[in-house]
Amino acid sequence: MTTTSKFGRVERHIDVDKIPRSDDTILYGNGQGVLRQTGDQQLAAQPAKRWSRSHEVGLPLSRRNLIAAGAALAFTGFPPIFTRPANAQGYDTSTIKALVFDVIGTCTDYWSTIVHEGQVINREKGLNVDWGAVATAWHGLFPPGFADVLNGRRPWQSLSSLRREALDKVMNEQGPGEFTADEMAHINSVWQRLELWPDTLSGLQRLKRSYTLSTLSNADMADMVKLAKFRDLPWDLIMTSELAQSVKPSPKVYQLAPQFLGLRPDEIMMVACHKQDLQAAKAQGMRTAFISRPLEAGPSGQVDAKPDPQFDLNAASFGELADLLKA
Amino acid sequence: MTTTSKFGRVERHIDVDKIPRSDDTILYGNGQGVLRQTGDQQLAAQPAKRWSRSHEVGLPLSRRNLIAAGAALAFTGFPPIFTRPANAQGYDTSTIKALVFDVIGTCTDYWSTIVHEGQVINREKGLNVDWGAVATAWHGLFPPGFADVLNGRRPWQSLSSLRREALDKVMNEQGPGEFTADEMAHINSVWQRLELWPDTLSGLQRLKRSYTLSTLSNADMADMVKLAKFRDLPWDLIMTSELAQSVKPSPKVYQLAPQFLGLRPDEIMMVACHKQDLQAAKAQGMRTAFISRPLEAGPSGQVDAKPDPQFDLNAASFGELADLLKA
Repeated sequence: MTTTSKFGRVERHIDVDKIPRSDDTILYGNGQGVLRQTGDQQLAAQPAKRWSRSHEVGLPLSRRNLIAAGAALAFTGFPPIFTRPANAQGYDTSTIKALVFDVIGTCTDYWSTIVHEGQVINREKGLNVDWGAVATAWHGLFPPGFADVLNGRRPWQSLSSLRREALDKVMNEQGPGEFTADEMAHINSVWQRLELWPDTLSGLQRLKRSYTLSTLSNADMADMVKLAKFRDLPWDLIMTSELAQSVKPSPKVYQLAPQFLGLRPDEIMMVACHKQDLQAAKAQGMRTAFISRPLEAGPSGQVDAKPDPQFDLNAASFGELADLLKA
Repeated sequence: MTTTSKFGRVERHIDVDKIPRSDDTILYGNGQGVLRQTGDQQLAAQPAKRWSRSHEVGLPLSRRNLIAAGAALAFTGFPPIFTRPANAQGYDTSTIKALVFDVIGTCTDYWSTIVHEGQVINREKGLNVDWGAVATAWHGLFPPGFADVLNGRRPWQSLSSLRREALDKVMNEQGPGEFTADEMAHINSVWQRLELWPDTLSGLQRLKRSYTLSTLSNADMADMVKLAKFRDLPWDLIMTSELAQSVKPSPKVYQLAPQFLGLRPDEIMMVACHKQDLQAAKAQGMRTAFISRPLEAGPSGQVDAKPDPQFDLNAASFGELADLLKA
């Protein structure tokens, strides 16, 4: 496929078929109804099968290869290659006052960060751990942990402790188990150092001029504060599910936003690359913007990155979102 | 008194005796021990007597007269005129990672803001309300409201609603009562538009380079978010007592800081112009920095602005605090 970049007026060739995506979803009960899970999470919840996935598909985990696989779309701020819903360009932004953002996945490339830090660990310790598989398995263990909290089978606890629990499981069952407690704590703190998507910082800076920007993340407050400081993220406010002692998609988390921003729900737009997150925000009366992050789960991870007219806006980058929001 | 400004090397004459201050304190029970209250709050809690205070002392409420009364100290960033505790210059800052700030009074000049907005209202509506007296009486009604919440006589409620309650009382009992509901709501939202002390913004910008900065205010989250956006305050995090469903000096409010910052209490410094606030922070293991704000309660308000060696640092401005913290 050939497309023209509105930024550089340069024609580039992108093979859409090489961009990993999936419409596969599974359903699982959460005690409050049924949640949609992306195919990636379904696969990732089976770490034994996925541990060596990257070798099976023959994709060494370098950024060069990510780009070679057709990933340039997400890294260079191209205009979207999919057809935009017809209403997007004329969208009435006049009553929107604040944007609240999912962070893990939407603002940050957690998968590549884990791989990059893991590659350094491999070199330093002479290991050959497949960190892409670790990243996929680790992240895949969150939904079950979340579901237990949502179900009330477990009381609320810090997301960082749930992440550490999942990491221990992945490393003990699958990994080399050669890490000290301090090293494991350091690995678990990777969520404080996540790499941003290339459009995140410039997009947020543009959006901040016209809107109040806040996180609304399923992470600990402390992790989000440290990440923001480490990456110079220009948040006006940091809110996470910790403040509601719950996790998204619980309504209690979304209800933090109008309360702490002092706005009506319809003056607030949730921005996320996860459709379940946006659906829950919409159910609370908020506006919604879907950001396509086809590489969220790695070069061969399966995520639903297709635009969807059920959301107010669809964009392939924060820059495009800023355009649509006239920021 | 003659002093030399380190900024401009210009000699200026300041009459220390004209700078209002007071060591008077009262004690009142809060169900958790005894709180110290400044003399200003004691006086302010008697709005009937204080309503026409500014006329009694013959001080028209213009900024020109504030300065003429010796207030230039706080407005021009002079070096402090008091003797600094001997340990301040060699203070070990190496383990401090975050600063948390009282906002109303410490970062902002609430008294002047209320007066300035009120003077505009007077002009627009042809009124002659003494807004300095309103400011003093209004702010003075907070401690009793807080005490009821701390005592458990009233459940926690938004600080904004407590402020509105106090404003209604002041305006109905003392004022002209000529305001619509919308106008009263606008007056109550003044806490979202507070003027900063002249050193606040530049000081915070310096401190932000070396430290994580957060509010720790007895205000609603929404008010602090809107104030931060309105005044470009560079907070890394906004925390208020609303998150603890309590109010300072309750320990629960201070305990938010280590939890949400992911730090030990002794890695966090509380910055405030209220000694009671700092004493409570110190009791939670936090570091303390006292900022002298002699004009917090207006040109003739009585506040305790004297440095105190019980605190780790004492400073007359955020710029001086940045110096002491090597930021």
